[in-house]
Amino acid sequence: MNWWKVAGGILGGGVILAIGLLIGHFGISKDTKPQWVKELYTDLDEEFIKEFMKEVDNKRIEENLRALSEKPHVATSQADEDLVQLILSRWRDPQIGLDEVKEERYDVFLSFPDSKNPNNVAVVRSDGSTSFTSQYMESPLTDDQKHPDILQPFLAYAPNGTVTIEKKGSNPELALLVNLAKTIDLNGTIAIVRYGGIGRVNKAINAEKFGVIGVIIYTDPKNINDGKSDPHDSYPNSWYLPPSGVERGSFKENFGDQLTPYYPAKDFTYRIPESQIKGISNIPAQPIGYEDAKQLICNLSGSEAPWQGSLGCTYNTGPGFVQTSLFSNSDVQINVYNKRTIKSSANVMGFIRGAVEPDRYIMYGNHRDSWVHGAIDPSSGTAVMLEITRVLGRKLKEGKWRPRRSIIFGSWGAEEFGLIGSTEFAEEYYSKLRDRTAAYINVDIAVFANASLRAQGTPPAQSVIFAASKQVKIPGDSSLTVYENWKNHFNRDSPHYGLIPQMHFNEGSVYGSVIHYTGSTSNTLEVKFTNVFTKCDYKKTSARIYPAYHTAFDTFDYASKYIDPGFTSHQTVARTAGNVLLRLSDSIILPLGARDYVELLENYYNEAEKQFLVNLNLHKISLEPLKTAINRYKTASETLEETIQNLKETDETPLRIRMVNDQLMLLERAFTNSMAFPNRLYFSHVLWATRSSSFATFPGLADAYQQATETDTTEDWHMVHHQLTIAIQAVESAASTLELATKL
Amino acid sequence: MNWWKVAGGILGGGVILAIGLLIGHFGISKDTKPQWVKELYTDLDEEFIKEFMKEVDNKRIEENLRALSEKPHVATSQADEDLVQLILSRWRDPQIGLDEVKEERYDVFLSFPDSKNPNNVAVVRSDGSTSFTSQYMESPLTDDQKHPDILQPFLAYAPNGTVTIEKKGSNPELALLVNLAKTIDLNGTIAIVRYGGIGRVNKAINAEKFGVIGVIIYTDPKNINDGKSDPHDSYPNSWYLPPSGVERGSFKENFGDQLTPYYPAKDFTYRIPESQIKGISNIPAQPIGYEDAKQLICNLSGSEAPWQGSLGCTYNTGPGFVQTSLFSNSDVQINVYNKRTIKSSANVMGFIRGAVEPDRYIMYGNHRDSWVHGAIDPSSGTAVMLEITRVLGRKLKEGKWRPRRSIIFGSWGAEEFGLIGSTEFAEEYYSKLRDRTAAYINVDIAVFANASLRAQGTPPAQSVIFAASKQVKIPGDSSLTVYENWKNHFNRDSPHYGLIPQMHFNEGSVYGSVIHYTGSTSNTLEVKFTNVFTKCDYKKTSARIYPAYHTAFDTFDYASKYIDPGFTSHQTVARTAGNVLLRLSDSIILPLGARDYVELLENYYNEAEKQFLVNLNLHKISLEPLKTAINRYKTASETLEETIQNLKETDETPLRIRMVNDQLMLLERAFTNSMAFPNRLYFSHVLWATRSSSFATFPGLADAYQQATETDTTEDWHMVHHQLTIAIQAVESAASTLELATKL
Repeated sequence: MNWWKVAGGILGGGVILAIGLLIGHFGISKDTKPQWVKELYTDLDEEFIKEFMKEVDNKRIEENLRALSEKPHVATSQADEDLVQLILSRWRDPQIGLDEVKEERYDVFLSFPDSKNPNNVAVVRSDGSTSFTSQYMESPLTDDQKHPDILQPFLAYAPNGTVTIEKKGSNPELALLVNLAKTIDLNGTIAIVRYGGIGRVNKAINAEKFGVIGVIIYTDPKNINDGKSDPHDSYPNSWYLPPSGVERGSFKENFGDQLTPYYPAKDFTYRIPESQIKGISNIPAQPIGYEDAKQLICNLSGSEAPWQGSLGCTYNTGPGFVQTSLFSNSDVQINVYNKRTIKSSANVMGFIRGAVEPDRYIMYGNHRDSWVHGAIDPSSGTAVMLEITRVLGRKLKEGKWRPRRSIIFGSWGAEEFGLIGSTEFAEEYYSKLRDRTAAYINVDIAVFANASLRAQGTPPAQSVIFAASKQVKIPGDSSLTVYENWKNHFNRDSPHYGLIPQMHFNEGSVYGSVIHYTGSTSNTLEVKFTNVFTKCDYKKTSARIYPAYHTAFDTFDYASKYIDPGFTSHQTVARTAGNVLLRLSDSIILPLGARDYVELLENYYNEAEKQFLVNLNLHKISLEPLKTAINRYKTASETLEETIQNLKETDETPLRIRMVNDQLMLLERAFTNSMAFPNRLYFSHVLWATRSSSFATFPGLADAYQQATETDTTEDWHMVHHQLTIAIQAVESAASTLELATKL
Repeated sequence: MNWWKVAGGILGGGVILAIGLLIGHFGISKDTKPQWVKELYTDLDEEFIKEFMKEVDNKRIEENLRALSEKPHVATSQADEDLVQLILSRWRDPQIGLDEVKEERYDVFLSFPDSKNPNNVAVVRSDGSTSFTSQYMESPLTDDQKHPDILQPFLAYAPNGTVTIEKKGSNPELALLVNLAKTIDLNGTIAIVRYGGIGRVNKAINAEKFGVIGVIIYTDPKNINDGKSDPHDSYPNSWYLPPSGVERGSFKENFGDQLTPYYPAKDFTYRIPESQIKGISNIPAQPIGYEDAKQLICNLSGSEAPWQGSLGCTYNTGPGFVQTSLFSNSDVQINVYNKRTIKSSANVMGFIRGAVEPDRYIMYGNHRDSWVHGAIDPSSGTAVMLEITRVLGRKLKEGKWRPRRSIIFGSWGAEEFGLIGSTEFAEEYYSKLRDRTAAYINVDIAVFANASLRAQGTPPAQSVIFAASKQVKIPGDSSLTVYENWKNHFNRDSPHYGLIPQMHFNEGSVYGSVIHYTGSTSNTLEVKFTNVFTKCDYKKTSARIYPAYHTAFDTFDYASKYIDPGFTSHQTVARTAGNVLLRLSDSIILPLGARDYVELLENYYNEAEKQFLVNLNLHKISLEPLKTAINRYKTASETLEETIQNLKETDETPLRIRMVNDQLMLLERAFTNSMAFPNRLYFSHVLWATRSSSFATFPGLADAYQQATETDTTEDWHMVHHQLTIAIQAVESAASTLELATKL
């Protein structure tokens, strides 16, 4: 054997070996990576979102709504319990169900009218005979209003009693309470007030302070019917409220079960005595329709009221009826026979386990209970939710999808009585949810008026709703996105972004308040879809809400005829809300914009400077540290934004990504302070607590300033400084949360 | 060429190729795994711990202590500021320093004696001449006591004033306050009380209730010197307190800066008026040595006191001096001239960035300020901390080590005035620390008496201190571990583990209180090393603390001669504490035992059942739900323990491991409730808040029950039910936190 052959053989063998080495090393997948490495980096699947949106079916939403609004289903009624079963069975369906489904019950304090003693407002002559009694029920304009389970008009928790207005001389009195004008002596009167503006119960609580002994509340056609009060102009001929329609509602300030504040209403829970309940009124109150209200108001004496409605007469302030009227020399009576009771109310909870971050929760919820049939409120939202869970549930069961984070769906009970179901849930699972919940999405009234999306939430949620709404087309126009349409209807000029759709940051914040203030369990955002897309051009309506709200006319017939024929607006909402949900649950980086708080903080600062500076200087209180804190927040949020940009371009460890996500998740909580509002049940968010003063700045500071300027006591100026400290510390804390975790 | 040669060549080439493929595939590291995959799974390195412990140097600790205790360094003094610089320079050293070092300043409310008007206790004859004045300073037994910066004995925040006891008839009065015996009429008297038992200020607050107008406080040799009061038996001849020694101290109930509760004492912070400070006494008070106390006490008239000390005479209760004494017909005066002032106090913070989980913090701290030289309190602890940071800092700078989690070291200011530095820190960084801090380790007085380790913390910390102490040998005996020695000296019979060392769960909880109650920033544990290993056999001492505590005799000379000659006990503490630190910072799974709460919860339940059941039944309050909650906790903690066992055996995703770590980290917080103790500053932990009643159960429940049985009002029985609800909800929440995150 020649040496060269040997050499060649070795060489050849070497070459082959080398080729083998190369192929073996680079060519064959070794897959030494654990399986989870791939999963960890699976980002939001845009194709999946498209598929989801495509499969959302308007006909199925219609069928959902028909089933959900078939009967009146006030909280804890048999019909409500039937819907619990309906939702349980949907979510437990082997083909389209969720991973885990649970019914959670609480024994909660409710209030109902007595069917045997209908509440009413009456006018009684001096001989004891009755010249007027308000209607016990709405007029049966369709079969729906004939349902035997319809709850008579009432205000939940309004105190019982019969109040008859006191006579002054021989004149009975009935005062029209307009903005609680201090020029009228209201002492010993019964007031008739209209819905709108401040909350229902606050009208009575304020009226009490003026000596009012009872409150009648009605809906003026001017506020709800664009002025139309003729029966032919209203339902069933249009979407407007018929003359007999009465808005029911909860008559208390605070949310949650009133006997068990801060604790779930379970068997072991201590219940405070009813006498210790705060935020309810002490005087009887009853709502009536505008048909009945007209008879009372159009007969009032007194001078012309500063506010005039659409009942077709001049509104006088009272007190008392004009002598020429049918009611002269008569008394007005409010007769209230509500029954307070503790009943078992259910939440239905549905869980989808997250594949990668099971201990991060995206929540999505709506209430289930209504006042009557509740087709729009709340069933339109539930019809949407059930369609979303159907599409996602099927994907899940087919093994085609599992979210990165866990999703918790909630069908809340007893919301109409004051957000009870969701509050009890937050109280029970406070510890578990507190540090794990990244976002809560609420879709209650999904569709009602104005041909545009409306959303509300905290500023960081703006980016995700914008992103989603850019991917959805409006009904009936394939060229216009929800985003563009929204921007056309409601927009604002942002110093940072230019012209953008107007997202509402601080109006009522219905479920936000629960989850937010109960300790910021869901700390990051609330996306709330309210009035969206109707076929008709309701753009020009001035109705403060859809006219059949909380009346016996909020039915499937009403919804399908006037609110959303064809259910394509519902479909659009489902697509948008589902898109938001998927972005939140599946994106590697939570799609939340921490920087979007800067505008609000700067606005708050500017208002404080403009309104307070002179007086603060006088009291040697400096606003400078607040400015410094806001600048720190701005820098921190911009740096975090850069970090996130860079993260996407590099191969970062999953725990580093989690670190950034946690900064986003924990941001909202940094703004909370459980000691900021010691006299306010639940409120702890330093930016979003409600305020009573008119200054659009940090609510604690605004109210303290208002009081200090009124009393000018040292203590109250101290309180201003104290509240300013709270505001500064909150902003500093939020900035610190966004700064590098490895830096103090 | 023969076919077989070709075949052989192909075959040979194929074999070689195959070999190449195999080697290429399996033999050469492809490293397609991201680098972090390896890092993520790097667990605690036991070899590194051994190396660390080996390098801990007793001589360096000795030199640390010499430098730290060279001068008296009360908070904010020049000497204190010098130590700030010393620690900054150590931690910033390029060879042995940390990643980031920062000085954090707060303007805090302090109280100092007036050097020009020394506080004193005097006896004044009726002609105005003085027959006795307490010593202004301790006797100069070594050069140390001659230092010009020694602070005169005083009680910080004790109110100023000169109180002279009122005469009743012609008898001056001086009452010996023993357990506040109600049989003596204390009204209008000055009381002399001894240290020990309840906190200093509580003696005055309680005395006030009986009409006492001033308090003199002294250290009885019986409590501190094993009865020895002869000067020859005490320092500098032994470790016992000399007759002139006076224990200084803070005279307030609450911790933190008193003018800025809940907020950091910064320039922007609102300060409450001094008049609103809670938890301080209204009557002057002054501490004296037992030499001075003897003159007062041994001349007292009245009947024999129920408690007798070691001053060599019969202790009478007073009031007044015996007629035959030098002090007959004399007045006792307390003259206090303390000055309250706001001064800038620094914390020194040192940061080591975690390699894998930078946003999880393990904290380690001690205070820096002393009353006088403070060799033992606090410098022994700081000497240990600086040696730990030296060894770890070197490893860090050499690139040989970086912890998995971040480590935050803190040298706190103004602790002696009531945990001020650490409280302000926790208040400033509340949001940042709240959800990221897994543990806090405090080593203050590192060594003082009893030849054993003592540790205190919350139950989950037991496992890590046990693990560490099993790896350290006691000084001078290479066969005995700290753990075994500890078990020999202090042990208990655990139903779960059998005989184990006694860890203290709830005594004082010094720094725990800060971090714990300020909102459970460090929510999991507090490991506190207190008195450990001395060369002498102090096992039999009954001293409640080392005798030179808070006096001018707590010096380097004292420490090196009597407490730890050779500094090997310090070394042992440094090894143990450092071992604990490394286990917490480097273990993949946090070494915390959630199940170790079960014994405590069951003990609490059993006590409640035994003591309260009959009366609770009478008031229709059931304990059953508490039992149910505790059983749920037990099951949840045992299931989690199994999960952790299984985790170690499988290839789990890093986020799943994080999920389990978070459950352990968040556990302590689930037991907190910011509304549980509305009248108690800072307290929020439902298990660890202090209680005033003697029932060893949930403190809120125990105190409410005590009150209800005393008053028997409906409101107070309601409060019992309310507090029981709080306890149940806390245990339910803790259980929920430990249960699967994907299950509600």
